[in-house]
Amino acid sequence: MSQQPIEYDDASAEVRAIYDDIMATRKSDWINNFWKVLAHHPPTLRRMWANVKEVMGPGALDPLTKELIYVAVSVTNNCQYCIASHTSAARAKGMTDEQHAELMAIIGLANDTNRLVNGYRAEIDERFK
Amino acid sequence: MSQQPIEYDDASAEVRAIYDDIMATRKSDWINNFWKVLAHHPPTLRRMWANVKEVMGPGALDPLTKELIYVAVSVTNNCQYCIASHTSAARAKGMTDEQHAELMAIIGLANDTNRLVNGYRAEIDERFK
Amino acid sequence: MSQQPIEYDDASAEVRAIYDDIMATRKSDWINNFWKVLAHHPPTLRRMWANVKEVMGPGALDPLTKELIYVAVSVTNNCQYCIASHTSAARAKGMTDEQHAELMAIIGLANDTNRLVNGYRAEIDERFK
Amino acid sequence: MSQQPIEYDDASAEVRAIYDDIMATRKSDWINNFWKVLAHHPPTLRRMWANVKEVMGPGALDPLTKELIYVAVSVTNNCQYCIASHTSAARAKGMTDEQHAELMAIIGLANDTNRLVNGYRAEIDERFK
Amino acid sequence: MSQQPIEYDDASAEVRAIYDDIMATRKSDWINNFWKVLAHHPPTLRRMWANVKEVMGPGALDPLTKELIYVAVSVTNNCQYCIASHTSAARAKGMTDEQHAELMAIIGLANDTNRLVNGYRAEIDERFK
Amino acid sequence: MSQQPIEYDDASAEVRAIYDDIMATRKSDWINNFWKVLAHHPPTLRRMWANVKEVMGPGALDPLTKELIYVAVSVTNNCQYCIASHTSAARAKGMTDEQHAELMAIIGLANDTNRLVNGYRAEIDERFK
Repeated sequence: MSQQPIEYDDASAEVRAIYDDIMATRKSDWINNFWKVLAHHPPTLRRMWANVKEVMGPGALDPLTKELIYVAVSVTNNCQYCIASHTSAARAKGMTDEQHAELMAIIGLANDTNRLVNGYRAEIDERFK
Repeated sequence: MSQQPIEYDDASAEVRAIYDDIMATRKSDWINNFWKVLAHHPPTLRRMWANVKEVMGPGALDPLTKELIYVAVSVTNNCQYCIASHTSAARAKGMTDEQHAELMAIIGLANDTNRLVNGYRAEIDERFK
Repeated sequence: MSQQPIEYDDASAEVRAIYDDIMATRKSDWINNFWKVLAHHPPTLRRMWANVKEVMGPGALDPLTKELIYVAVSVTNNCQYCIASHTSAARAKGMTDEQHAELMAIIGLANDTNRLVNGYRAEIDERFK
Repeated sequence: MSQQPIEYDDASAEVRAIYDDIMATRKSDWINNFWKVLAHHPPTLRRMWANVKEVMGPGALDPLTKELIYVAVSVTNNCQYCIASHTSAARAKGMTDEQHAELMAIIGLANDTNRLVNGYRAEIDERFK
Repeated sequence: MSQQPIEYDDASAEVRAIYDDIMATRKSDWINNFWKVLAHHPPTLRRMWANVKEVMGPGALDPLTKELIYVAVSVTNNCQYCIASHTSAARAKGMTDEQHAELMAIIGLANDTNRLVNGYRAEIDERFK
Repeated sequence: MSQQPIEYDDASAEVRAIYDDIMATRKSDWINNFWKVLAHHPPTLRRMWANVKEVMGPGALDPLTKELIYVAVSVTNNCQYCIASHTSAARAKGMTDEQHAELMAIIGLANDTNRLVNGYRAEIDERFK
């Protein structure tokens, strides 16, 4: 049932064009499995790559910060693939061991205090509204 | 059942000392409700403040980045109080409207791709292991 | 769109019989809104009450411990209604303020360490398998 | 990318001191992988052990109840490592097969009713406020 | 901090064009708040509308089934706005009270059995691989 | 710690009777591991089968739609076993590759917009109340 990745050589012209754009955008000669499984449904591959290209592309947040945010969501949701791929991307963009450790500490702490707030049912302060 | 915040004037000496440290550390004359509800159990107030002070204090990640990560977790978990308080903190540390919009876009997208990975069951690439 | 509770006087005989069993089992003259909204679909009301009656009834875990576990799940999921109703039930079964505070602390901490494990990707020790 | 555990013989004096305290506190000659991966960042190891030692130590809730609550959170979050380690701890503290089965049943049921409440949007009863 | 909706009359030409397309696509003269808050960041408004238009548009699954799936995710995540808006959309597409009740029952049950599987750690059967 | 499945030949008469009903209801000669691990606690096996039989049985929603909803919840919660078993069931009930791809796209998108709503804190429109 798990989807087999579709390799470049086995891909349709439509899929290859997207693979090419992923590699060109990332200045890489490699495609990771996420895209190769989405390739089973080219409209999804095309649509999701358009989203990632736009959202993770140059903007007001620097590329490393964007990856740290991605990891924070993925760790909270326990998506092992996503943790592995985005931690790898963060390291490629310069994340140090110390930064990784602080990232983990914040994610853990936020998941803790989120529940203390739920359980104690703190009312939102006027200043925050 | 929802916990009423304990105001400074009604607090014990033990709790006031922690309130004082929170305000001194934050260079603020104000305490938000989260701490005031934890004050019902001083050991939890003391322990959680020690954690927040250490984890969110100066380190290898800059203060704004730390708040963005906190917001990412809180939005993923739908903790309204935490979203309000940490979005406010992020703005106080310089987050622009454009940065906020990009933060939201990344959080949303990561929650999307986390599920595509779950559903398609992509295997972790060798390079990520 | 939010479901209005169906009061006893407005309920069908089928629904009243279940309300009666809830009150008799709980030795109470009162029904909370959860059951009154499920009453819009009597098969669900009947089925869910059968589940709650069996699972939360007398067994190897004492009644208070059962409620603490229920609160732990509800706080983790941020179900405000469930937190309110099961915290109330726990207090009715003897939960002290100190026990409530410890419960909150454990829930928060477990949500923290769950994410540290996700992010650091600790392998399961042989002894735990 | 997954963190290798740091064994006692390879650990710094700072880390060994914490390992020693974990073993002494637990009256055990063994450390599980969770601590050994946190050891990559000694401040996190120190801080998290201080939290666990305080929160899971003697208090108003008995040690087995504390572990059951920990398992309830971990199962809800699907943290396999945490389920394995805290189920093991619960068994070491006396959890019977019957208690384990009841724990599982309550966790499942609470996750069910949490969603029924979400979907039917039951209003919180006055008595619970 | 909560975003005020941007009404049509106050919107830029860029935003109005998207509002117009939403209304034309939905054959409606009305825009709900979700789009009006995204309008604070036109690139997000544009991008998300393109996603929703494509994913929720005509396809191999009928429109009502698509909404039921949307509700199932939203109830599991406890997104009150999303539950309200997509339950409303499902009713507009023909969902009956009986279908709504069955939808709720399945969502609740799936959230239950998901946790039983986590806690009992059932291995995936060969036939499912 | 992971529960070993209890095979038919090793099962008690009580458990065998439930296995027989599962196979008869499903017109299958096979039982999947979920039921075989629940068999360690016959009351849970009996109760959960009664729930699944009723909720997933004939009703106002067709069998395939019911499975799609089950998959949507399971993917959102990242329950790998449940994703595998209910995707398999959906295929057995006629789900095409195109329908599977659309299901995945909706689940991902709903998880995205759920967080945009959380983060932007859109107020529920009057029409949805």
